[in-house]
This record gives sequence, structure tokens and C-alpha cells, in this order.
Amino acid sequence: MTLRLPIYDDVVDASTALGVAAYRTPVLTSQTMNARLDAQVFFKCENFQRIGAFKFRGGYNAVSKLSAAQRKAGVVTFSSGNHAQAIALACQLLDVAATIVMPHDAPAAKKAATVGYGARVISYHRQTEDREQIARALVEEQGLTLIPPFDHADVIAGQGTAVKELLEDVGGLDLLFVPLGGGGLLSGSLLSANALSPECAVYGVEPQAGNDGQQSFRTGAVVHITPPHSIADGALTSALGQLTFPIIKQYARDILTVSDGQLIDAMRFFAERMKMVVEPTGCLGAAAAFNELVPVKGKRVGILLSGGNVDLSAYAGFLQSN
Amino acid sequence: MTLRLPIYDDVVDASTALGVAAYRTPVLTSQTMNARLDAQVFFKCENFQRIGAFKFRGGYNAVSKLSAAQRKAGVVTFSSGNHAQAIALACQLLDVAATIVMPHDAPAAKKAATVGYGARVISYHRQTEDREQIARALVEEQGLTLIPPFDHADVIAGQGTAVKELLEDVGGLDLLFVPLGGGGLLSGSLLSANALSPECAVYGVEPQAGNDGQQSFRTGAVVHITPPHSIADGALTSALGQLTFPIIKQYARDILTVSDGQLIDAMRFFAERMKMVVEPTGCLGAAAAFNELVPVKGKRVGILLSGGNVDLSAYAGFLQSN
Repeated sequence: MTLRLPIYDDVVDASTALGVAAYRTPVLTSQTMNARLDAQVFFKCENFQRIGAFKFRGGYNAVSKLSAAQRKAGVVTFSSGNHAQAIALACQLLDVAATIVMPHDAPAAKKAATVGYGARVISYHRQTEDREQIARALVEEQGLTLIPPFDHADVIAGQGTAVKELLEDVGGLDLLFVPLGGGGLLSGSLLSANALSPECAVYGVEPQAGNDGQQSFRTGAVVHITPPHSIADGALTSALGQLTFPIIKQYARDILTVSDGQLIDAMRFFAERMKMVVEPTGCLGAAAAFNELVPVKGKRVGILLSGGNVDLSAYAGFLQSN
Repeated sequence: MTLRLPIYDDVVDASTALGVAAYRTPVLTSQTMNARLDAQVFFKCENFQRIGAFKFRGGYNAVSKLSAAQRKAGVVTFSSGNHAQAIALACQLLDVAATIVMPHDAPAAKKAATVGYGARVISYHRQTEDREQIARALVEEQGLTLIPPFDHADVIAGQGTAVKELLEDVGGLDLLFVPLGGGGLLSGSLLSANALSPECAVYGVEPQAGNDGQQSFRTGAVVHITPPHSIADGALTSALGQLTFPIIKQYARDILTVSDGQLIDAMRFFAERMKMVVEPTGCLGAAAAFNELVPVKGKRVGILLSGGNVDLSAYAGFLQSN
């Protein structure tokens, strides 16, 4: 992993590298929400991205940047979620061997999807084993290249292409709300917003139960927490990264938090009014805007919907929970 | 109601009349479905249309075609579903008074949405009253113009704009699958397909429980049935129309039927893999293609998803029913 901080030029390079491999996802609007908030709201729909989440952008960009020797040796990562599938699909498309270190109790559907993209899955016990250690051993013993989920310059640059597209499509914004876990998406988004809409106030949004990002931002140093409990399962990180934090610290306006109940309300709105499935984590930015955690009236508001991968029966439960 | 059969020129006129009032809905694709069917499948997503269904196209076109005197007197229609909201919103946008005749037991949410668009709702008892009679009395007594749900040249022409857009966006198709209720969408689609992709075989798809369209098509005369039971609540018509049937008879390749179980499987696919809410009726065309009721291998296949308006708790039940 390099410690060079990515810049907007890297996002532009990532756009070129992604080419047509990633979808240019649609930007949707809702008259209902515009009227409710008295604002102009633009939803960047990464739930329609390949593998159902923005993660494909960063994963593909990182794999595409490997040298011929690195490609030949293969890639390893640790993830039970969208990053695993992103790396698996990127490697399949770029003809690189992928190894994914996953908890032994990861949902069978997620394992199957990852294997379906041709990846090798190595299971570990959450309680007794350290996934990073397993991954690093593979790096040392088998010469694999580790592509971590967020703290990697090429991953961050790839994630930044979503907001680059959004701003190219709709023009400048006053406010932008972005889900925050480890900060790969937020830091990439900040690079694009700063370059293309420098007046835009960008907010990272994380679960109330796990506000390490907010604490870090407000104290000025990375705060570590025990992994929180929230339905936003893509944002259960315990700390921001060495690369993501400096970028967030420099460019973000603030970090906000929302409750699981607010995420469920947003999920229901998307299903009922916009006919979209958005996963709980994907609703973080939307929930902050919908609840007007900062004033949105009269503003041009961007909302990044990060993904749509949610187990159908859990999703059905969320829809019925009112 | 005029008995002049609409032609493709009317669809072109409707496109102009709709202007930016209707969304040009996205055409989405799924690598998963392409691989499963070994075909190239294009989904025209009218679930993302205003009011959540294609019906807005026909309703708006019909209201926009009224004379100044007709606009001043106002419009009436009978519907408990998407057509009611389509007319209500079209009238609101065009500053025309709308009266909607709805069953007294229509879902409260649907009544509220219709009233929310500024329409007057008149309730009737399904068992003891005839909605068409009520509407026609309003026409005679108050000089309102009746815009029926499907058997109307301007409505048909408006509905045809969806497939016009689809073919403009993706080029010619080999096969096209369209949901079939009263035939407004199918007949409009046939006009566009015949003009823009004349080699394309167009199939109407209706619920197995109510195959009046199939019987009519195959016998060559309109067959009336008692309103069927199916989860496809937008396709529970008892007969094709005087305008829709001749167009369907002339241009459709065949009428196919699917089961409620096949509709649920399609709904689950859209939620799980494409992150979209599609209502049961909206899945009719998709279910026929997914189950390969005609051979699709190696073909360029268009699928019209007609809408996404489904009660959330019913929808949650469908998602959990496997």
C-alpha cells in the first residue's frame, strides 16, 4: 500500500481506466422529495452500478493499475461485503487471479457470488483469527498484491469517479451527502467536488452507533472504536484510514450521523416513491438530507446512494417495519 | 371517444406534446440476465416514470389534446389505479379540473395520492353501481370530457412513446414483450415497433387467470371474461377495446400468459439483481421472456416494465414468499 495521497488527477485517470467497464449510473430526481424539502435534489444511483455498489469503481481501478508481474501473481483482499465482489469481478474482467479472505459465517449468497466471479475464497474465524494477518501472509508467501477496501490511493481515486460523473451531469451543487465507512468513497468524492464544484459543502454521514468518523473529524486525529452495531453493515468500520482521514480532514464540511430508524424511513421512501432498492448503508447520505441535519431549503443537493445489496428477506422486514 | 384508429404519426405527435412533462425513462441492462438467457436484454423502465407508471404518457397526451372549451369544462375518468393518478397529475400540470370515479374500497393511499394532485374523487360501490354510467352521467350533466383508461386514440398514442424511446435508444430489436391489460400500452407499442423496427416480433403478455386477450387474438374476435383474480392488478380487464383490438390483431405476433408465481420470481429478480421495484403487472413481459415462452437465445430482446406501484407490505410479502 502506498502512502501517497491521491489527487483529482488520479480520479480523472481512474475514469479513463474504468472506461465502459463500470456503468455511468443514472442521476434520478423525485418531484415529491423536491417539494418536501423545497430543494433540488439529485440522486447518484450507485445501487445500479455493477455488483450493485460503487465499490466496483475502486476495485477495478486498483486492479487495472497493477504491473504485468503483479497481475500474473494475483490479488488478495479481505471483505465479506461489496469490496469482495468488486475485486472478484474486476479480476475476472482483467484476467487476474483473486483470493478473498472472508469470515466463515459470511452469508452463503455472498460467498457464492464471489466464487461465481471465479475468485478463491479463504474462510477465517472472526473470533480467533485476524483477517489482515491472513491476507498479509498470502502477500509474503505467494507474492499476491493486497488491495484493501478503502485505504489505497487507486481505490480512493476510483471511488471518486461517481461524484465526478454526478457533477458533470448536473453541474455545480451547494451540498453533497456521502455515506461514510472507512472513507474511501467520501475522500474520493471530496477530490472530485473540490475540483469541479469547489463551493459545494460535502458531508460524510455515518451510523449514530459508530461515529468514529465524526469524533475523528472534530478532534483532528483518527479515533478507533469497537465495531458498532447498525443495519448499515457497509459502514461498520472501527477507524478511518491513513489516506482517507487527511483528505476528509482537509475538504469535508462536517461528519453527520443518522439512526437506523432514519435509514429505514429512507429505504421505504426509495421503494415507495422512487421504485429503487437501496441498502441501509446506501441510505446514510439520503437520511441526513431528508431529516435536514443541515439546512437544505432552496439548495441544489447531491445525494450519493452507494449501493443496493441487501438480503431480500431482511429488506422485506425493513419495508414492513412501520 | 373517437373510433379513429391511431397511427404512428400520432405517437410522434404525442412525443412532442409530452415534451419534458414525461421522463425519458432509462433503459437498463443486466449482465446476469444476459448470461442466463444468452441474449441481449433491454429493460425500458416505466416504473421510473412520473406517477410510477407508463400511464402518465397516455393521460397527459389525451388531456393536452383537449380544446380550450373542453379544458375549461374539465375531465372525468374511472379508475382505481395508475390511470387515475395519471389523469389527476396531467390535469394539475395543464390546469384542468379532474374528476375521478373510484370504488369506495380503493386503497386509502391511492385516494390520497389522487386528491393530492388536486383531483375530485367520487366514490361508488363496486357491487351495486356501474362506474361507467356514473362517469357518463357527469359527461352529460356537467359537460366533462371522459378519458377512459385505454380505449382512446390519444391515450394509445401517448403510451406508444415509451417503445418509441426504447427503439431510438437501443436500435432495432428481434423480440419485444409488453404487459397486456386493456391493450393501450400494447397497441401503442405495436405502432412504434412497426414503424421503427418492423422485423421485431411483439408479444403481449397477460395473467394466465385472465387470458381474454389471448382468446381474442387467436379467435379473431373480442372475447369477454369475468374479471380474473391475479396479483397483476393492472391487467384485470375483462376485454380488449374497440380501438386496441384491431391494432393488436394486425401487428402482434402472439399473446402469451404467465402465472402469479412467475411474476413473483421476476419481482424478486428485479429487487435482488437490478435494485428495482417493479409491480406485479409490470413484470408480465419480463416473466414471459425469463421463462423463455418463446426462444430468446441469441436475440436482441426488449422488455417493457410498465410500472412500480405496489403497496409496500404486499411487496414485502412477495419478496419473502420463496
